[in-house]
Amino acid sequence: MESAVKSSASGELSQSIMKRLDLSRKGKFDDMLQGIKDVRGLADPVGRVDLRTELDDGLILQRQTCPIGVLLIIFEARPEVIANIASLAIKSANAAILKGGKESTESFKAISTVISQALESSEVPNDSIQLVTTRDAIDGLLELSQYIDLVIPRGSNDLVKHCQRKAHMPVLGHADGLCSIYIHFDADTDMAVSVVVDSKTDYPAACNAVETLLVHEDVLDTVLPAVASALIAKGVLLHCDQPSKTVLSKHLPQDQSALLRSATEADFSTEFLDLVLAIRTITSDPKNATSAIDAAIDHINTHGSHHTDAVITASKATADRFCAGVDSACKFWNCSTRFCDGMRFGFGTEVGISTNKVHARGPVGLEGLMIHEYRLAGNGQGAAMYGGSGGRQYTHRKLPLA
Amino acid sequence: MESAVKSSASGELSQSIMKRLDLSRKGKFDDMLQGIKDVRGLADPVGRVDLRTELDDGLILQRQTCPIGVLLIIFEARPEVIANIASLAIKSANAAILKGGKESTESFKAISTVISQALESSEVPNDSIQLVTTRDAIDGLLELSQYIDLVIPRGSNDLVKHCQRKAHMPVLGHADGLCSIYIHFDADTDMAVSVVVDSKTDYPAACNAVETLLVHEDVLDTVLPAVASALIAKGVLLHCDQPSKTVLSKHLPQDQSALLRSATEADFSTEFLDLVLAIRTITSDPKNATSAIDAAIDHINTHGSHHTDAVITASKATADRFCAGVDSACKFWNCSTRFCDGMRFGFGTEVGISTNKVHARGPVGLEGLMIHEYRLAGNGQGAAMYGGSGGRQYTHRKLPLA
Repeated sequence: MESAVKSSASGELSQSIMKRLDLSRKGKFDDMLQGIKDVRGLADPVGRVDLRTELDDGLILQRQTCPIGVLLIIFEARPEVIANIASLAIKSANAAILKGGKESTESFKAISTVISQALESSEVPNDSIQLVTTRDAIDGLLELSQYIDLVIPRGSNDLVKHCQRKAHMPVLGHADGLCSIYIHFDADTDMAVSVVVDSKTDYPAACNAVETLLVHEDVLDTVLPAVASALIAKGVLLHCDQPSKTVLSKHLPQDQSALLRSATEADFSTEFLDLVLAIRTITSDPKNATSAIDAAIDHINTHGSHHTDAVITASKATADRFCAGVDSACKFWNCSTRFCDGMRFGFGTEVGISTNKVHARGPVGLEGLMIHEYRLAGNGQGAAMYGGSGGRQYTHRKLPLA
Repeated sequence: MESAVKSSASGELSQSIMKRLDLSRKGKFDDMLQGIKDVRGLADPVGRVDLRTELDDGLILQRQTCPIGVLLIIFEARPEVIANIASLAIKSANAAILKGGKESTESFKAISTVISQALESSEVPNDSIQLVTTRDAIDGLLELSQYIDLVIPRGSNDLVKHCQRKAHMPVLGHADGLCSIYIHFDADTDMAVSVVVDSKTDYPAACNAVETLLVHEDVLDTVLPAVASALIAKGVLLHCDQPSKTVLSKHLPQDQSALLRSATEADFSTEFLDLVLAIRTITSDPKNATSAIDAAIDHINTHGSHHTDAVITASKATADRFCAGVDSACKFWNCSTRFCDGMRFGFGTEVGISTNKVHARGPVGLEGLMIHEYRLAGNGQGAAMYGGSGGRQYTHRKLPLA
């Protein structure tokens, strides 16, 4: 804090970053400690058996969880994050190379020293958690695929994109969070208001906040005005396409309709991370019963970021079609996109949210830091003993996991 | 076959490749057909629910399997492979771009046309399976990470390495298969002979054949001579380190010992894919009970390819230490490395064997072509309703999967 105060005085450090660095702020240290205790309280993720098969008498196959190996975790300048991340790495039996935002370097060093001292009195190798403080070390590390198995960048969109572009090993995470909600023609107005307002205003800077609202043409003048009015009352700026703007201009009181903006095409590919929402109208083809939901799905798959998307509809069939068609980690029906979160999902803690197509996807708990291994135990068997005429046959008998 | 016969006559095509192209050879067509039927017989992998949690009254979270998206599958010039791969893609509801070895192009086109015609009469979109026949198309495809989610190269080490280097999306597979077996000092001789001979000679060109044999110094003159003699009788050339060569020269009959070669350091990093085996002696530190098994683990983790490694020991504790320490997809105790195979593991069919550290690992069945998605269904809930003073509490109640 001493050097932060100096940097702040000379204008090198913003007040908001300085505030972040201050672990003495009310509750901050206790929260950090509680985070460690929460991880400690999770079930041991190592060695969980999820498949046992008898291949033959006395030849038993078992699949079980094991750590990935060496993680490179890159995170923002928040001193409390290193404690949480180190706990996750230790609990999952992975080794970790930690690289935090440079403004927190002094705090990271101090906390890292405490972690090392604590590891001394345990069976965990002291150097299984290593802090890198060298400036600009990231690019070099991203090339060491022979030593590092997975990169987990936590922080800005730019940081994640940089890692995805440069890394020679897999990257777990998400760059964009361009979430959408589609209001179908049978949507309940109160439900639509509740879900959209929460998705947009609960925490606009979050990756799971909604950025695009799709509205069926039939409810432009019934459901949408109530939603728009509630959003404007919360300070949200609406970027509307022509049909929605025309209808809202008629239905909203003058003081609200004056705040409407015209959407540009770019708005529908923008993650505002702010109190701004783009609105687009979805039209139906009367000859095709699923044309509207299909158009919404198509918009989301084309413009979205495969993170979290929601539909408001009274119809389970429509919701099912939406969930089957949208190519995202999380598909929600009649509830806020903000529920996409490891804590809210009941995972206890969260490594991050992944929009990857392989390995972990969606909110990633401790199990996202695990892979599996196969163990086979026999008493001298060879593959040549099996098959053919007169050879032994595999039994492939499923065994209980215990 | 007509153009293959011509190419063969002019010396452009080897006899072995021409043999491979001939689907009229006895049993080959039937085997291809059976492969398709086997895939058809597998359980539907889509939509399997593996987690259901009540987050609150009327707010239900569900995790279920879904296809990955678009696969790029690159395979060797074997006409029957396209049928098997197309079946796997269709069964898993993934779209696939198929690129096969050029010598089979005409057969691929014919089979691909049959697949297209068959899809016409189904709900599966006709263009979900596409054959690429353009020469040198691979490098361009490997850059299209916005359209292709996973690359599965099946074929030569060079092909897989090329894909791993060039692909902008994840690659599933393995380049090397450098498998090792360690014979501990308490190993049973008959068991060691059976396991090592099968691992080396059952199919020496396979990725799961053993390439390096580690032998504890105490059994150089007891277990090793029997193993070496059996291997030599099967035509295996032994590349021995100094201690093992000295002992074997004494114990083997003259005609066998004359065939021993001295190992070079490079032998222990070589995937011979042939009837050649490198032998290294493992020594113990009398003051450290686990020094030998730890040395074997260290050798394997340094020189191996993280594919399949085995230990021959009478001790469960030693086997457990080996399995926990070796950083490979498959760790075997007292059985042949050749069991590392999707069919033998009981997966019904095999996409390939992966030495990746994330997503599928080891023999990959149909489930390696699946990922998961989260679905959350509510009735208007927003995240702001929860927590704080007076807010609702998450119930996080585990629900049955059915």
